[in-house]
Amino acid sequence: MFRHIVLLRWVDEATEDQKAAVVAGLETLPANIPEIKNYVIGTDAKINEGNSDLGIVADFDSADDYVVYRDHPVHLKVVADFIKPILAGRAAVQFPLG
Amino acid sequence: MFRHIVLLRWVDEATEDQKAAVVAGLETLPANIPEIKNYVIGTDAKINEGNSDLGIVADFDSADDYVVYRDHPVHLKVVADFIKPILAGRAAVQFPLG
Repeated sequence: MFRHIVLLRWVDEATEDQKAAVVAGLETLPANIPEIKNYVIGTDAKINEGNSDLGIVADFDSADDYVVYRDHPVHLKVVADFIKPILAGRAAVQFPLG
Repeated sequence: MFRHIVLLRWVDEATEDQKAAVVAGLETLPANIPEIKNYVIGTDAKINEGNSDLGIVADFDSADDYVVYRDHPVHLKVVADFIKPILAGRAAVQFPLG
Protein backbone atom coordinates (compact mmCIF):
# COMPACT_ATOMS: atom_id res chain seq x y z
CA MET A 1 0.00 0.00 0.00
CA PHE A 2 1.04 3.59 -0.56
CA ARG A 3 -0.13 6.54 1.55
CA HIS A 4 -0.69 10.17 0.64
CA ILE A 5 -1.21 12.71 3.42
CA VAL A 6 -2.04 16.36 2.89
CA LEU A 7 -2.76 19.03 5.49
CA LEU A 8 -4.47 22.24 4.36
CA ARG A 9 -4.76 25.61 6.01
CA TRP A 10 -7.47 28.10 5.07
CA VAL A 11 -7.29 31.87 4.77
CA ASP A 12 -8.89 33.73 7.68
CA GLU A 13 -11.67 34.96 5.38
CA ALA A 14 -12.80 31.43 4.44
CA THR A 15 -16.48 30.91 5.29
CA GLU A 16 -17.98 27.81 6.86
CA ASP A 17 -19.83 27.21 3.58
CA GLN A 18 -16.57 27.31 1.63
CA LYS A 19 -14.91 24.90 4.07
CA ALA A 20 -17.90 22.55 3.90
CA ALA A 21 -17.79 22.66 0.09
CA VAL A 22 -14.19 21.38 0.18
CA VAL A 23 -15.19 18.39 2.32
CA ALA A 24 -18.26 17.69 0.16
CA GLY A 25 -16.13 17.87 -2.97
CA LEU A 26 -13.46 15.56 -1.57
CA GLU A 27 -16.11 13.09 -0.43
CA THR A 28 -17.11 12.55 -4.08
CA LEU A 29 -13.61 11.39 -5.05
CA PRO A 30 -13.60 7.72 -3.95
CA ALA A 31 -16.67 7.04 -6.10
CA ASN A 32 -14.98 8.69 -9.08
CA ILE A 33 -11.42 7.44 -8.69
CA PRO A 34 -11.35 3.67 -8.08
CA GLU A 35 -7.60 3.76 -7.39
CA ILE A 36 -8.49 5.20 -3.95
CA LYS A 37 -8.55 2.24 -1.53
CA ASN A 38 -9.13 4.19 1.68
CA TYR A 39 -9.92 7.88 2.16
CA VAL A 40 -10.10 9.72 5.47
CA ILE A 41 -10.98 13.42 5.71
CA GLY A 42 -10.78 15.20 9.06
CA THR A 43 -11.47 18.74 10.21
CA ASP A 44 -9.07 19.87 12.92
CA ALA A 45 -10.50 19.51 16.42
CA LYS A 46 -8.88 22.79 17.55
CA ILE A 47 -7.11 21.27 20.54
CA ASN A 48 -3.84 22.96 19.60
CA GLU A 49 -3.00 26.47 18.40
CA GLY A 50 -1.33 26.85 15.02
CA ASN A 51 -2.70 23.66 13.48
CA SER A 52 -3.76 23.15 9.90
CA ASP A 53 -7.52 23.14 9.25
CA LEU A 54 -8.13 19.95 7.26
CA GLY A 55 -6.32 16.64 6.93
CA ILE A 56 -6.67 14.00 4.22
CA VAL A 57 -5.18 10.50 4.36
CA ALA A 58 -5.54 8.53 1.12
CA ASP A 59 -4.28 4.97 0.60
CA PHE A 60 -3.56 3.32 -2.74
CA ASP A 61 -2.22 0.00 -3.95
CA SER A 62 0.87 1.68 -5.39
CA ALA A 63 2.65 4.95 -5.99
CA ASP A 64 1.41 4.78 -9.59
CA ASP A 65 -2.18 4.66 -8.37
CA TYR A 66 -1.50 7.71 -6.18
CA VAL A 67 -0.30 9.57 -9.27
CA VAL A 68 -3.52 8.62 -11.09
CA TYR A 69 -5.43 10.26 -8.21
CA ARG A 70 -3.12 13.27 -8.07
CA ASP A 71 -3.62 14.02 -11.74
CA HIS A 72 -7.25 12.89 -12.07
CA PRO A 73 -9.48 15.61 -13.60
CA VAL A 74 -12.22 15.13 -10.98
CA HIS A 75 -9.64 15.68 -8.22
CA LEU A 76 -8.10 18.65 -9.99
CA LYS A 77 -11.56 20.21 -10.38
CA VAL A 78 -12.20 19.96 -6.61
CA VAL A 79 -8.79 21.56 -6.00
CA ALA A 80 -9.46 24.37 -8.48
CA ASP A 81 -13.10 25.04 -7.58
CA PHE A 82 -13.10 24.65 -3.80
CA ILE A 83 -9.58 24.37 -2.32
CA LYS A 84 -7.52 26.97 -4.21
CA PRO A 85 -9.93 29.87 -3.51
CA ILE A 86 -9.46 29.56 0.27
CA LEU A 87 -5.99 27.96 0.50
CA ALA A 88 -3.45 29.65 2.78
CA GLY A 89 -0.99 26.76 3.17
CA ARG A 90 -0.39 23.12 2.30
CA ALA A 91 1.92 20.36 3.55
CA ALA A 92 2.09 16.86 2.10
CA VAL A 93 3.98 13.59 2.15
CA GLN A 94 3.70 10.28 0.30
CA PHE A 95 5.29 7.05 1.49
CA PRO A 96 5.00 3.26 1.22
CA LEU A 97 2.88 1.72 3.97
CA GLY A 98 4.07 -1.19 6.09
CA MET B 1 -10.89 6.67 17.71
CA PHE B 2 -9.00 9.92 17.49
CA ARG B 3 -6.25 10.67 14.96
CA HIS B 4 -3.19 12.89 15.20
CA ILE B 5 -1.24 13.70 12.04
CA VAL B 6 1.99 15.67 11.91
CA LEU B 7 4.20 16.45 8.93
CA LEU B 8 7.76 17.61 9.57
CA ARG B 9 10.24 19.35 7.33
CA TRP B 10 13.98 19.26 7.99
CA VAL B 11 16.56 21.98 7.55
CA ASP B 12 18.78 21.57 4.49
CA GLU B 13 21.77 20.83 6.73
CA ALA B 14 20.10 17.83 8.42
CA THR B 15 22.22 14.70 7.98
CA GLU B 16 20.92 11.23 7.15
CA ASP B 17 22.04 10.13 10.63
CA GLN B 18 20.00 12.89 12.25
CA LYS B 19 16.92 11.99 10.18
CA ALA B 20 17.34 8.31 11.04
CA ALA B 21 17.65 9.18 14.75
CA VAL B 22 14.24 10.86 14.61
CA VAL B 23 12.63 7.74 13.16
CA ALA B 24 14.42 5.49 15.64
CA GLY B 25 13.33 7.73 18.51
CA LEU B 26 9.71 7.82 17.36
CA GLU B 27 9.70 4.04 16.94
CA THR B 28 10.31 3.66 20.69
CA LEU B 29 7.13 5.57 21.58
CA PRO B 30 4.41 2.90 21.19
CA ALA B 31 6.22 0.66 23.68
CA ASN B 32 6.49 3.53 26.15
CA ILE B 33 3.07 5.15 25.71
CA PRO B 34 0.29 2.55 25.83
CA GLU B 35 -2.31 5.15 24.82
CA ILE B 36 -0.94 4.83 21.26
CA LYS B 37 -3.20 2.35 19.46
CA ASN B 38 -1.67 2.63 15.99
CA TYR B 39 1.46 4.46 14.89
CA VAL B 40 2.63 4.96 11.32
CA ILE B 41 5.87 6.77 10.45
CA GLY B 42 6.73 7.47 6.82
CA THR B 43 9.65 9.13 5.08
CA ASP B 44 8.57 11.09 2.03
CA ALA B 45 9.01 9.16 -1.23
CA LYS B 46 10.14 12.32 -3.08
CA ILE B 47 7.59 11.98 -5.86
CA ASN B 48 6.59 15.65 -5.53
CA GLU B 49 8.61 18.83 -5.09
CA GLY B 50 7.99 20.91 -2.00
CA ASN B 51 6.80 18.08 0.23
CA SER B 52 7.47 17.66 3.91
CA ASP B 53 10.13 15.10 4.86
CA LEU B 54 8.43 12.90 7.47
CA GLY B 55 4.83 12.02 8.27
CA ILE B 56 3.41 10.51 11.46
CA VAL B 57 -0.13 9.19 11.87
CA ALA B 58 -1.03 8.24 15.44
CA ASP B 59 -4.40 6.84 16.52
CA PHE B 60 -5.81 6.88 20.04
CA ASP B 61 -9.01 5.82 21.74
CA SER B 62 -9.84 9.43 22.57
CA ALA B 63 -8.70 13.03 22.42
CA ASP B 64 -7.67 12.72 26.07
CA ASP B 65 -5.35 9.84 25.19
CA TYR B 66 -3.83 11.95 22.40
CA VAL B 67 -3.07 14.65 24.98
CA VAL B 68 -1.37 12.05 27.19
CA TYR B 69 0.88 11.24 24.22
CA ARG B 70 1.44 14.90 23.32
CA ASP B 71 2.61 15.73 26.82
CA HIS B 72 4.36 12.44 27.63
CA PRO B 73 7.96 12.97 28.79
CA VAL B 74 9.31 10.19 26.55
CA HIS B 75 7.67 11.88 23.55
CA LEU B 76 8.88 15.32 24.57
CA LYS B 77 12.43 13.97 24.93
CA VAL B 78 12.38 12.64 21.36
CA VAL B 79 11.12 16.03 20.18
CA ALA B 80 13.78 17.92 22.12
CA ASP B 81 16.73 15.59 21.42
CA PHE B 82 16.15 14.62 17.77
CA ILE B 83 13.39 16.66 16.11
CA LYS B 84 13.95 20.22 17.29
CA PRO B 85 17.65 20.35 16.26
CA ILE B 86 16.78 19.75 12.57
CA LEU B 87 13.23 21.11 12.37
CA ALA B 88 12.47 23.62 9.61
CA GLY B 89 8.68 23.36 9.58
CA ARG B 90 5.72 21.50 11.09
CA ALA B 91 2.06 21.06 10.20
CA ALA B 92 -0.45 19.10 12.27
CA VAL B 93 -4.13 18.25 12.70
CA GLN B 94 -6.13 16.16 15.15
CA PHE B 95 -9.63 14.90 14.48
CA PRO B 96 -12.11 12.20 15.48
CA LEU B 97 -11.98 9.11 13.26
CA GLY B 98 -15.06 7.61 11.65
